[in-house]
Amino acid sequence: MIGLMELIQSVVWLVDRVRILDQTLLPQQEVYLDMTDFREVAAAIKELKVRGAPAIGVAAAYGVALGALQIKTNSRTVFLRRLNEVSEIIAATRPTARNLFRALERMAKVAASKGSVSHLQEALVAEAIQIHREEIAATRAICRHGAKLLQDGDIVLTHCNTGPLATCGYGTALGVIIEAHRQGKKVKLLADETRPLLQGARLTVWEAQKAGVPMTLITDNMAGYFLKKGEVNCVITGADRIAANGDTANKIGTYTLAVLAKENKVPFYVAAPTSTIDTAIASGEEIVIEERGGDEVTSFQGVRAAPEGTMVANPAFDVTPNRYITAIITENGIIRKPFQKGIKRALA
Amino acid sequence: MIGLMELIQSVVWLVDRVRILDQTLLPQQEVYLDMTDFREVAAAIKELKVRGAPAIGVAAAYGVALGALQIKTNSRTVFLRRLNEVSEIIAATRPTARNLFRALERMAKVAASKGSVSHLQEALVAEAIQIHREEIAATRAICRHGAKLLQDGDIVLTHCNTGPLATCGYGTALGVIIEAHRQGKKVKLLADETRPLLQGARLTVWEAQKAGVPMTLITDNMAGYFLKKGEVNCVITGADRIAANGDTANKIGTYTLAVLAKENKVPFYVAAPTSTIDTAIASGEEIVIEERGGDEVTSFQGVRAAPEGTMVANPAFDVTPNRYITAIITENGIIRKPFQKGIKRALA
Repeated sequence: MIGLMELIQSVVWLVDRVRILDQTLLPQQEVYLDMTDFREVAAAIKELKVRGAPAIGVAAAYGVALGALQIKTNSRTVFLRRLNEVSEIIAATRPTARNLFRALERMAKVAASKGSVSHLQEALVAEAIQIHREEIAATRAICRHGAKLLQDGDIVLTHCNTGPLATCGYGTALGVIIEAHRQGKKVKLLADETRPLLQGARLTVWEAQKAGVPMTLITDNMAGYFLKKGEVNCVITGADRIAANGDTANKIGTYTLAVLAKENKVPFYVAAPTSTIDTAIASGEEIVIEERGGDEVTSFQGVRAAPEGTMVANPAFDVTPNRYITAIITENGIIRKPFQKGIKRALA
Repeated sequence: MIGLMELIQSVVWLVDRVRILDQTLLPQQEVYLDMTDFREVAAAIKELKVRGAPAIGVAAAYGVALGALQIKTNSRTVFLRRLNEVSEIIAATRPTARNLFRALERMAKVAASKGSVSHLQEALVAEAIQIHREEIAATRAICRHGAKLLQDGDIVLTHCNTGPLATCGYGTALGVIIEAHRQGKKVKLLADETRPLLQGARLTVWEAQKAGVPMTLITDNMAGYFLKKGEVNCVITGADRIAANGDTANKIGTYTLAVLAKENKVPFYVAAPTSTIDTAIASGEEIVIEERGGDEVTSFQGVRAAPEGTMVANPAFDVTPNRYITAIITENGIIRKPFQKGIKRALA
């Protein structure tokens, strides 16, 4: 399987630094940022230079590894205290994506293992790379499982960006579509632009063009028009956090697509690695939704649309209740209803 | 009733010319364009310098009046032939709004009456002004009828722009909200930005600020989030064409709001003058939907977002089937189901 993943490396570890492709500048500029300070990684997550739940998880792990290398001490106690501060700073960047916290938990577990400071530093770098390797493998499996759901001639609607950029791997929802195309299926992509930050228009179009997948870009409010016309065969989106019952938090607008899909009797799939599942959370009601700055809504790339003094709401995610979801595509197979059971089995 | 209408004059007839407030430049610039050539009016409609179904109707009527004054002949035959060309040019600007064609039909009827060319010219100017007066009266009545549906504390979601700018009168959907506020009801407005041309962010916010109505701006894909949270008490939109059975064409995204409202058991109202109703059309299936240029989607206020070579769809309207509509607010009262009967009665 040769995929787009080999062409796009949104986050990589390079010996003693993290290299991040600045996704806020795409598609106009392809700028790679080399970071040797974990604070730069934290800022990159917060500012969406790296985004997408799996990619945030990988970047967070590399951030902790970088932070570990920055601590100059031979005392385990001092090391662990300062590493904890590193982890807290990274944890405070974005609240919704499960992958970020899962990565931090894994790194904390490694930090709690025996050995000298230099041993721990090595082990932390190794664990971060391992998390990245697992995401690559997981997304590869997701693409293969998901591609089976698509048929020749399908038009697939997606939202936001869920390709290699978002995952540091093969992608989730977009990866599934790219893989079906690579297998020779004649699939077409219908991509929401995804306001306010236009990840669809900027990133999904860029990736689909690189992969050669035929696609049409629409504004978010046009999806219903095409669903009602019968011109969409299925909807696939990614996920930022999936509760134990299958309720799924994802980019704002996902819930709307799920309602529209149900109303028009079109399957609605969520594609995500199991690292996005949070069994500590019973239902979507408990998921914290990030509220971002109002400027994202009143402007785009510094050009203002709304008048001065405009009051704005900017929830970055919404929760799709499990009843709207046809299936969840994970690396461990496709989970169907009842999700509670299926999720347990997929994680076992 | 003193309203915002007295402050905002989007289209007016001034002795021998049409003055149009260029809505493409709002809210940053308030530029009035004086037109003495009907072709300028046609271009202004096509380029959305004037937009909103009722305002398009009024502008079209004034365009014909202007075109009539431009014809220098004493021959009735020559006059009528050339006036027909004027009408055809204006008819070709935008296909969806019923008001445009209704205005042209009324002007054609006046042109067919007896009298000299100069008599016809006078009569056509008078008819255009009469159409405008009727829209003012109709929107005033719509606001009064609609305001009865709103209660203290209501949060009202709306889409696109339907105030004085869009109607050359008191407004339809936004007019209803402004009137409820004017009556002292504590209503709040939740306004979709309405991509691609951001009539919500640019025009609805501008008008709501002038009227002092408390409001929050959101991107189109956030509406579902607030409906699901129970933070919307009703949805009111305008209309571009209403079929005999109540199916309603309106700005792209309206259908999605109607589905979301139904799913969340929130009333969905359409506010429109009877000049928007087209009884020659049995159902929404027959309504022609305007497809506009792709640049509107790939860019945001002139800033390009999507890569070069992006394929785009840009339907400007969608059709909301009557089953999603709770009631239609017209100047002749509030029409409830079954709409077929109610519409007949409202037009009688």
